[in-house]
Amino acid sequence: MLATSEARPQRHRAAEESRGSAAAGSGCGRRGESPLRILRALFAALGGLVVLVVAGTALFAALRLATHEPLLDRRHLDEKHRYLASLEARARPNLVLILFDDLGWGDLGAYGCRAIATPRIDRLAAEGARLTDYHAPAPFCTPSRAGLLTGRYPPRTGLVQVTFPHGSPLDLLMRIAHLPTGMPEDEVLLPEVLRAAGYATAMVGKWHLGGRSPSLPGELGFDRYFGLLFSNDMAPVPLWRDREIAEPHPVDQSTLTERYTDEAIAFLEENRGRPFFLYLAHTFPHVPLLPSAVQRGDSEGGIYGDVIEDLDRSTGRLLDALARLGLEDDTLVIVTSDNGPWFEGSPGSVRGRKNESFEGGTRVPFIARWPGRIPAGGVIGEPVNGIDVLPTMLGLTGIGPPPDRVLDGRDMWPVLAEGARSPHEALYSYRGARLEAVRVGRYKAHSRHGVFGGSPGDLPLAGLFPKGPWLFDLDRDPSESYDVSERQPEVAARLFALIEARDAEMERNPRGWRE
Amino acid sequence: MLATSEARPQRHRAAEESRGSAAAGSGCGRRGESPLRILRALFAALGGLVVLVVAGTALFAALRLATHEPLLDRRHLDEKHRYLASLEARARPNLVLILFDDLGWGDLGAYGCRAIATPRIDRLAAEGARLTDYHAPAPFCTPSRAGLLTGRYPPRTGLVQVTFPHGSPLDLLMRIAHLPTGMPEDEVLLPEVLRAAGYATAMVGKWHLGGRSPSLPGELGFDRYFGLLFSNDMAPVPLWRDREIAEPHPVDQSTLTERYTDEAIAFLEENRGRPFFLYLAHTFPHVPLLPSAVQRGDSEGGIYGDVIEDLDRSTGRLLDALARLGLEDDTLVIVTSDNGPWFEGSPGSVRGRKNESFEGGTRVPFIARWPGRIPAGGVIGEPVNGIDVLPTMLGLTGIGPPPDRVLDGRDMWPVLAEGARSPHEALYSYRGARLEAVRVGRYKAHSRHGVFGGSPGDLPLAGLFPKGPWLFDLDRDPSESYDVSERQPEVAARLFALIEARDAEMERNPRGWRE
Repeated sequence: MLATSEARPQRHRAAEESRGSAAAGSGCGRRGESPLRILRALFAALGGLVVLVVAGTALFAALRLATHEPLLDRRHLDEKHRYLASLEARARPNLVLILFDDLGWGDLGAYGCRAIATPRIDRLAAEGARLTDYHAPAPFCTPSRAGLLTGRYPPRTGLVQVTFPHGSPLDLLMRIAHLPTGMPEDEVLLPEVLRAAGYATAMVGKWHLGGRSPSLPGELGFDRYFGLLFSNDMAPVPLWRDREIAEPHPVDQSTLTERYTDEAIAFLEENRGRPFFLYLAHTFPHVPLLPSAVQRGDSEGGIYGDVIEDLDRSTGRLLDALARLGLEDDTLVIVTSDNGPWFEGSPGSVRGRKNESFEGGTRVPFIARWPGRIPAGGVIGEPVNGIDVLPTMLGLTGIGPPPDRVLDGRDMWPVLAEGARSPHEALYSYRGARLEAVRVGRYKAHSRHGVFGGSPGDLPLAGLFPKGPWLFDLDRDPSESYDVSERQPEVAARLFALIEARDAEMERNPRGWRE
Repeated sequence: MLATSEARPQRHRAAEESRGSAAAGSGCGRRGESPLRILRALFAALGGLVVLVVAGTALFAALRLATHEPLLDRRHLDEKHRYLASLEARARPNLVLILFDDLGWGDLGAYGCRAIATPRIDRLAAEGARLTDYHAPAPFCTPSRAGLLTGRYPPRTGLVQVTFPHGSPLDLLMRIAHLPTGMPEDEVLLPEVLRAAGYATAMVGKWHLGGRSPSLPGELGFDRYFGLLFSNDMAPVPLWRDREIAEPHPVDQSTLTERYTDEAIAFLEENRGRPFFLYLAHTFPHVPLLPSAVQRGDSEGGIYGDVIEDLDRSTGRLLDALARLGLEDDTLVIVTSDNGPWFEGSPGSVRGRKNESFEGGTRVPFIARWPGRIPAGGVIGEPVNGIDVLPTMLGLTGIGPPPDRVLDGRDMWPVLAEGARSPHEALYSYRGARLEAVRVGRYKAHSRHGVFGGSPGDLPLAGLFPKGPWLFDLDRDPSESYDVSERQPEVAARLFALIEARDAEMERNPRGWRE
């Protein structure tokens, strides 16, 4: 269309005139020269375009990388420092918080597992309380841990996605996308509070809340640190001791559970005379599964079972150390998981697995023992959440909450100690940044969700099929199979309104600052 | 680079000469004309390219459409006709085969469901046998039905994908891809065998084995047909009666279960005096869920429950008709499902849902009643499969199998009547064309799978994470949680070898012809 009747003869003339040079250069005959000119121009233009696009992209990426900044509110960082400086020393209880990675609700003997032997954890459950409706703060690693240590819904911290090792391609992509890659310095973490109150604090194991300053464990409340900063399927994941790499990637992971346990026990021994907080966040049963040489081949639950039995033995060694050091009666021991099972592992009788807002994504074991304070042998069905751990420790130590921010968690001590009702009117379930469900009493409402990675059992590409909205009655239908929103329209309306209100509130004040 | 120093002056000259026309056309000044020429050429070339690509694609698509042929082996079509012509008349049993669409293993009272009332189906189970390890031939509609009606593993029929309504975009795409869109004429279907043996045959409900000749129900053994040829979420899905459209799309689906039932009962009444085969393949509980006006709002299982309770009432009406007509003692009644639950619905205590090769994808209810022949109240845990229905009917009627082809199914009558062991040494689990698992006794091996739509609980895009290979011990670990391939290396080696051997056999002789 662009080649008008007037232009055409001129092109012919130009082709005639360029005959000699073109023929010399390419050996083409005369008739082919006019299209050749067009092709040449086309290639030159396309080449230029490619160079432009590549250079532009590189420049854009470099600019984005250069301008990527950690999430930070300086005013609330100051408030945090003021708050921490104001805390008085406290003496007890000690806290030993043992977190497994991707352990499912059905993976422990105390929770009905028959294939795997967990006698030490089962005994711990018999000596304390076993919760049957505890939920991790998120259905996957990073946000779940963010919620556990801050007592707030994970999106408040900006950590709505898994973080990747410093300098890895996915880390670069996240920084180009200006996604947070580490815990913001202005958040108040449980170890910071307890350290400010005179506790010795140590973390052993998987951090997964950032791989660079100012989001390293030693910068966020832990006196000492030993472990892999990231998941064991990421690379590079060297073994860190405090702020240094103690062993480069790849680490012999089959020895990790035992080395973690040795470190944890050494910390207990060194700090037996003062209050302490030990956060032992095991690397397993996250894949790849690497049981110890002594255990491998032993469990009826296969390699997954071996890894769990390693963890059970580790827990036993730690409990033995507490007993030997005479610390049992002053120590609250918690055993739990960061989310539901992934490839192997069992969510028990509930629907869903890791990364889903169905129950199996977040409902995980939670065992709490404090001799004399938590009645032995209790089985507690009240819904509570990992965001309750920090407020519970505040309550137990008599430390007030940071005044400048919302704590979404509640003190669940009355639930543990007296079998009280859940302190929550509503519990919200975020999958990444997305609020996908709310739980109120026996009811759970799911917003419409499922775009990408949504749900099991789909046809190819059917992560694209959104599901819901749904209202499930967990009392009658614990495996979330039958939507009763039409049967209980008032309940449904109330719960869906809660989801909308919370979304609006998060839009208005995502960090949950108080003015 | 292509614009040589010799070519350049000529381009300038051409630009000079075309000045008048270009300036007239665009109003550009002289200096801009050389780049303008390049741009013009570029656009012209690009335009040409686009036209070429579009035309080429259209031509290619038209060619592919024109050359798309149904899967067909003429020699075996002749053999089929010879076989059918050779059959002698048989008198009994009558067969009433009721198939639900996407009903899960846990969705009936007889299978432990508390939220939904299914008294009539439960009573049927009490009067006959209830199978707890029956598997549909595939974890989704089309191949599952192909396996059920041919007694062969679904990939033998070429139907490894869902088929779509005649003329719909996805149907076009499948034909362009030269994928089969209907049951091949050369397959021997249960209704064809029974009709050849003198049975009256009727199908009511969802066919899903093709929407055009020669793959229509009336062409593959059914004297009469009434129903939707495809799933109720596809468009257009008019209501067919025999070879005509009785009601155009969209059909009022809330009346379907009742209309299907009326049709089925009318068929029974008309054919009470001769042997008959009624295949009642309900449209529900496939989504969208549309219960009858009389039922809606009644079930504690919500709308899903309403739809199931409609189906239960339908089943009751049919059973009442059989009793009223004095046909009970001559009729084998089977109630089952084509695959596990999709969005709602429950797979009971097993892992997985529709479109997965985990148990929940194919393990579904199967109830069989034949008074006096199947002991009442039996609960049978032997693994059997939908491909066994045709061979079982051959056995019961004394009809020999077609001699020119493999039947993968086995006569499961001894299992139903005498509690015999499963007739299968191994049962294979195909998801589409892909052999994903094999079951041998208590063990089930999964090949490495999961690319696209693979598994539950994944991170975004993690359909890309393949799972397995795994060996599960279903006796100890019914929810497929713990791979024991390292614990049982001989078992694992044997089962994985079976998968390889079967893949090789299917490659060699996919249609399973006998020479």
